[in-house]
This record gives sequence, structure tokens and C-alpha cells, in this order.
Amino acid sequence: MEIIDAIKKKTKQWSAIHHIVTYYLLAVVISTIIVSLPFFHNPGVELPFIDAMFTAVTSISVTGLTAVSIPDTFNPAGQIAIAVILHLGGIGIMTMGTFIWVILGRKIGLRSRKMIMVDQNSKTLAGLVKLLLAIFKLILLIEVVGAAILSIHFLSYFDGVGEAIRHGIFASVSATTNGGLDITGASLIPYADDYFVQFINMILIILGAIGFPVLVEVQEVLKGRSKALNDRHKFSLFTKITTVTFFWLVVIGAVSIYLLERNAFFADKSWHETLFYSLFQSVTSRSGGLATMDVTQFSTETLFFMSVLMFIGASPSSVGGGIRTTTFAIMLLTIWNYAKGNSSIKVFDREIHQEDMLRSFIVIATSLMLCAGSVVLLNKTEPFSLMEIIFEVASAFGTTGLSMGITPDLSIFGKCLIMCLMFIGRIGIFTFLFIIRGDDTKDRFHYPTERIIIG
Amino acid sequence: MEIIDAIKKKTKQWSAIHHIVTYYLLAVVISTIIVSLPFFHNPGVELPFIDAMFTAVTSISVTGLTAVSIPDTFNPAGQIAIAVILHLGGIGIMTMGTFIWVILGRKIGLRSRKMIMVDQNSKTLAGLVKLLLAIFKLILLIEVVGAAILSIHFLSYFDGVGEAIRHGIFASVSATTNGGLDITGASLIPYADDYFVQFINMILIILGAIGFPVLVEVQEVLKGRSKALNDRHKFSLFTKITTVTFFWLVVIGAVSIYLLERNAFFADKSWHETLFYSLFQSVTSRSGGLATMDVTQFSTETLFFMSVLMFIGASPSSVGGGIRTTTFAIMLLTIWNYAKGNSSIKVFDREIHQEDMLRSFIVIATSLMLCAGSVVLLNKTEPFSLMEIIFEVASAFGTTGLSMGITPDLSIFGKCLIMCLMFIGRIGIFTFLFIIRGDDTKDRFHYPTERIIIG
Ligand SMILES: [K+]
Ligand SMILES: [K+]
Repeated sequence: MEIIDAIKKKTKQWSAIHHIVTYYLLAVVISTIIVSLPFFHNPGVELPFIDAMFTAVTSISVTGLTAVSIPDTFNPAGQIAIAVILHLGGIGIMTMGTFIWVILGRKIGLRSRKMIMVDQNSKTLAGLVKLLLAIFKLILLIEVVGAAILSIHFLSYFDGVGEAIRHGIFASVSATTNGGLDITGASLIPYADDYFVQFINMILIILGAIGFPVLVEVQEVLKGRSKALNDRHKFSLFTKITTVTFFWLVVIGAVSIYLLERNAFFADKSWHETLFYSLFQSVTSRSGGLATMDVTQFSTETLFFMSVLMFIGASPSSVGGGIRTTTFAIMLLTIWNYAKGNSSIKVFDREIHQEDMLRSFIVIATSLMLCAGSVVLLNKTEPFSLMEIIFEVASAFGTTGLSMGITPDLSIFGKCLIMCLMFIGRIGIFTFLFIIRGDDTKDRFHYPTERIIIG
Repeated sequence: MEIIDAIKKKTKQWSAIHHIVTYYLLAVVISTIIVSLPFFHNPGVELPFIDAMFTAVTSISVTGLTAVSIPDTFNPAGQIAIAVILHLGGIGIMTMGTFIWVILGRKIGLRSRKMIMVDQNSKTLAGLVKLLLAIFKLILLIEVVGAAILSIHFLSYFDGVGEAIRHGIFASVSATTNGGLDITGASLIPYADDYFVQFINMILIILGAIGFPVLVEVQEVLKGRSKALNDRHKFSLFTKITTVTFFWLVVIGAVSIYLLERNAFFADKSWHETLFYSLFQSVTSRSGGLATMDVTQFSTETLFFMSVLMFIGASPSSVGGGIRTTTFAIMLLTIWNYAKGNSSIKVFDREIHQEDMLRSFIVIATSLMLCAGSVVLLNKTEPFSLMEIIFEVASAFGTTGLSMGITPDLSIFGKCLIMCLMFIGRIGIFTFLFIIRGDDTKDRFHYPTERIIIG
């Protein structure tokens, strides 16, 4: 009993973040059991434990790297189970949990609210439940509309209506949650000439990766709820920064892929093929993970560039991973404002808080060390080329899910490491640091400051 | 005349840093002319302009990457000329210039002092000339002692006394300035079994790369000048941080190289061979550039790890390059103190200034973008593997000079890019940013601060 009491006491001390991580881990365990059930497998399939766990982690973290082929391994029921797990990770276990609680009419206490706040990076507790409900409804709406459009369009691809709907639903869920998984067995390559499917998928991926707060703010503005506010400050600084960064990453990504492959992969392609290949692969590098081509056909410079894009990742409070767009934006803004000789970081008539700059620094530095260390270790344990390993690591950390095809052949150690990267990428490096840091206990003393030489 | 007046006016507005860069560039031009002189070449040698310039930049920036073999291209007179150019870069043009001015009894004005201050990253103008003289004397002393020891030892290697002295002097200068060049045609590989030569070279490399302020402070303490000071604060925070970081980088570097190669390159080596190969290659990764082996014999994981080491580089105010040890240390300290929940960065009973943290962030971020961009471009223009290119870029930016052997076969564009990296690595990314920034004109207005979500 003493041990149980000790555990209880310890548990109480845990901060909200510890709970979030515990719940995510629990979700991984349950998902592993679910995808291991023979009931969900195709006849004759033997799914090793490590690959079942890998499928669970890739689904919970909505990454899309897979050690096994989804349609070869899982029957339609299993595919539905995976679509549900994609939700658990994508919208966030807390959003999901809150929704269920609200449905059941259960009172949501401060502790739960705090946990939700951490999960969604929210700054205030007020209106949180309303926000989460709005998010859930929005994502569900997007998925349903996407599924409907794609299902109708897929009628021309598949024999039965049921088959078209199954493909439509899975594709919509996979794109919206940025899950990156497919039941075609070859991502979106079967639709390489179908620009309508690609366009719908890009829209869905962007809606999932742009950040929930952005969606909610846009919705409120559309509804006219923010009329009272100053026009220029209709949107929050977060929404402005993340949207602008996201937009430019997509544009610069597409243009760069075009320029790098102009005389290579795109040499014999028409202008519209070139446009869609560049644009789709740029969008999917944010976090989507679906692809309209075999990325190994790109040259090393393009793959390295895409690795950088995947490392940056999507918006915070979205279905994406990586260091996040805002972190990258703060980095650029810090350099730019320092080079201009400004005393503070100014953007959109607002100033960035010193603490946010510090966090951005910590996130970038920690992520880099994590990924560089992983690249060294995987080079030691796996027989693949440096480019293949860098691409895999960036894809896992960015929860993107693109791969040069080495995932199924990774060693047990390699798969475990990639699972850790996907998990950390999903919960965010900053949350991960908070686990070490614990509660906000600050030191109260100070030493004299002494300057040193930098760079 | 109007144009000349305009230029004069513009020149007056230039900050000290602009002058430093201009002088470095001028040094490159003069050095290019010197190494182009047929008088310095072996009979029958045709040195292309790009390779002459490359030799000049590699010498001024004390990097050691070379497009041509030094002993095959340059006669003994030419080798002496290169040794002199190594000095110009290594000790810093300003140190050199100050020394000459002092010798000539010329008054050193505030403007010149300011320039020296920037070049040596010094915080105060007082005692600067004395400091520079002390540095110059120290480095010269180290080189002379090194040259004497090596020359005597080399008597057993070479036929004539003159030959031994020539090799002794060049080796000592190349090691102390971290020049990384050689006149053996194969770096220190001929001395792969001679642990005495390796030991002396390591000492010389470390003395050059540990940072001039450290040398001067140690000298003062040895002379007993700091007796009045508190024992614990005998050394500056800078000296403590850079020395501790340098030490651990060497130790962790050597241990990691050993662990990564234990079953590969070191599989058939004796314990003392393993020890010296690991230790020397770790020391030389700081900034030295000399090698006791062909680094391509290492596996990819080791080469990638060494690239990270070279990117970090040596101490500021030393003959080394890279982001510098202090920048790296501040990064680790920031993460560590944040994870612990401290309100400020505490180390050695002192606190790090917010501005230094900001600078460290900017240096790391800018360097990464510079190097990642270079890797993408070189992959596009050069026919080499990703590992060869990453290694070359890290080596150039860290002014290390190790190479997997691709330097002579780089395209004109590739050579120009590597020259830029060596130049920026030498003057330091922070100085480089200051060129854009110009004088310290700060903005006087503020916007409201708004928090955003990071990571
Ligand atoms: K994904
Ligand atoms: K060097």
C-alpha cells in the first residue's frame, strides 16, 4: 500500500504535460493491441510485434512512415480502425477526450482544462471547451466534405460504390489529419495525372496543417463575430505569422524543387505536370506525407532540400510536426531585426516576447542535436546511404511520412529510434523538454552578469 | 572628383568592421598575386588563376583545403611565402599591423584601435596594443619552440640539416596557425607511427585554437600578476567557458570516434594506434586540418560526426573558425538552464548576458542556413556524394581543412563557394552579419508585445 500511496503522491505532482504524454503513450499501447488483432488482418498475414507497434506509432503521430503495406496487411475493417487511430493522433487525444466528456455532460475540471491547454498550446483557460468543440466540428466537417467529393470522383476509378466510398473516406481522413497513409499501396501515385484529386488533397492537407487556431479565427471572422475589433488586428499575431510562413514555405518550396529538377526529373515533363509535381511535393513536405511520385526519382540536392522543409514542419497546434513554422519564423525575424540594428523583434505592428525568442532558440538547438545524433546512430546501425537516412530522420521528426523506401528494412533498433522521433515530433520538442523541466519552479537568486565573446 | 569625394564620404561612414573585411579582401588579392608569381613555382608548373586565388584564400583563412599540392606546385621560396601568408590570416591582419605600427613608433589612433577591437572581439580599448603585442610575441614564441623541436626531430627523417629545418618550420607554422597545409604532400600521414611528432603537433594546434585571451590570461597568472584578484575569479568567464568546452569537445570527439570505428577502421589496430588516431583526428577537427590518416577510410557515421565537430570549430579570437566553442557552449547552457527551470543562464558563479544568448542564437541559425544552402547548391553543381559535400562544407566553414579529396576536382563555381565559406568562417559569421547591420543605430519605438505559440 505504501508503494501505491507513493505512486499516487508522485502522480499528483505530475504536471499537465506528464499526463498528456502518458495518455499518448497509453494510446500507443492500445493502438498496438488493436492493429495486432488477427481480426483486422488479411488472411495469412503474420504481423511482427515491432511492425504492429510501428503502425500504431505512425498512426498516433499521424506520420505515415510504414514498415508494412496497409492494404496488403489490413482488411477493410482494419483500415477503418487505422482511420480512427489517425484521428486520435491528428486532432489530439485531448480534443477527442473533451468532446466525449462534453457529450456525456461531464464537468470538466481545472486539471483537465490545464491539460487541454498544454496540448493545444493555448494561453488562456477561458473558452477552451468551446474552442475544442469548434476545432472538432471543423475538422470533422472538412473530412466529411473531402470524403464526399473524393468518393463521388472515385466512382470512375472503382467498380462498386462501396469501394469508391471506402477509398474516398480513407483518402480524406489521411489527407486532413496529414496521416500520410494510403490504401492504394502506392500513395497518390495512381492519381499522378488526376489534378482534381491532387488539388482536393492539397486543400485538405493545408487545412489540417495550417493550425486549428487559424481555422477557428477565420471561421469567426467569416461569421462576423470580430466586427467590433480593429480591422488590422482582426487576426491574432500567431495566425498572421504562421499563415504567412506557411504560404512562403509552400511557394519557395515549389519554386526551389522546380529549379533544382528543371533539367533532371522535369526535363521531359509538360508544364502542368511540372507545376503539379512541384507544388504537391512542396505542400506534402509541410507534413502531409502523401506523394504523387516516387521521391527517389529526385536528385540528392532536392531530397536534401525537402529534408530541411520536413524538419521545419507545419504550424503548432495542428496535425503536423517538426520545429513548427512559428519557430522558424521567429528565427528569421530575429536574424533580420538584429541585422537591421533593431532593439526588438517587430512584426505586424507587434513585438515578439523575449521568452518566445528563447523558446524558439531552444527548440531549434534541441531538434538539431536530436536529429544529427539520430543520423549518426542510424548510419552506424543501418546499411543505407546518408541521404536515405537524413530523409528518413527529417520525415519522422517532421511527422511527414515521406520515405526513400528504407522503412520496412530498418533494424529493430532503427525502427525504435524512428518511432521515438515520430513520437517526439508529434508531441513537440518543447513539450518534451517540459517533461525534464517539470513545474515552473524558478530560481530566485542571481549572479553578476559577465559578457563573453560569441561567434 | 565628385566620385572620389563621394567614395571618401562613404568610406568615412564605414564602421570598423567594414575596414577589417576590406583589409582581409586586400590581403587575399595581394596573396593571390604572390602565389601566382612564377618565381615561387616549381619548373613547368602552370597555376590556373582560380587555383592561385584558392591557395591565397585557404592561406589567409588558415583553412588548409587545397586545389593543388603545395610541394608539387611551390618551390622552397614559394613555401616560405605561404608560411608568411598563413601568419597574416592566423594571427590576424590587425595584430600584425599593430605590431608593425608599434615597431615604427607610429601613434595608434582611436579609429585603428576600434578596428583592432572588433578583430579581436575585445570589449575594451584599454591595453589593447599591449594585448596585441603580447599575443604576437606568444604565438611567435610557440612557433619558434615548435619549429626547433620538430627540426631537431626531423634530422632522422631527412638527409640535410636545411631540409629538416625547412620541414620543421613549415610544420610548426602550419600547426600553430592551424593552417592545415603541408609540404610532405600527404599531411602528417608519413608520421602516422611517430607519436612524438603527433604529440607536438597536437600541442601546437591546441595552443593556436584555444584562443589568444586564454593564452594571455594563463601567462599573466603564471607571472603572478593576478595575485591580487580573488582566486576563483583569476580567469575570465570567457577563458573558463572556452577552455572547458574545448576540452570536452576533444575528449567526447576522441571517445566517439573510437566507439564508432571500434569494429571498423580500428578493428585491426593496436591500442596505441587506436588512441592516437582517435585523439589526433578529434583535435584536428577543432580547426587544425592536418591528419595522420586518409579520412575516407572512416565510415559515414564518423565522417558525419566529424562534420558536426568541424562546424562547431575553435575558440573565438583564435586561429580557428566555425560557430566557435562559446556559441556552442551558450547553446547547451541555455537548453540546460531552461530545462532546469532557471530564470537565467548561470555558469561558474556568473550569469550570461541576454544579448550574448541572442547573438549565439543568431550565429547558429545563420551558419546553419549558410551551410545547408551550400550543401544543396554543391550537390546540384558537383558530381560528388552527399557525405563528401557535407564534409567539405563543414571543413571550409570551420576553416578546418580536412577533406575527402574532392577539393581539386570542384567546378569553378564550387571553388568560389568554398572560398566564400572559408572567408566567412575566418572573419566569423557575426562579423559578417555586422557588415549588413552597419553602425549600432537602434530603433527608438516599441510596439505592444504579443505572445505566440512556439514548437
Ligand atoms: K504525415
Ligand atoms: K585549418
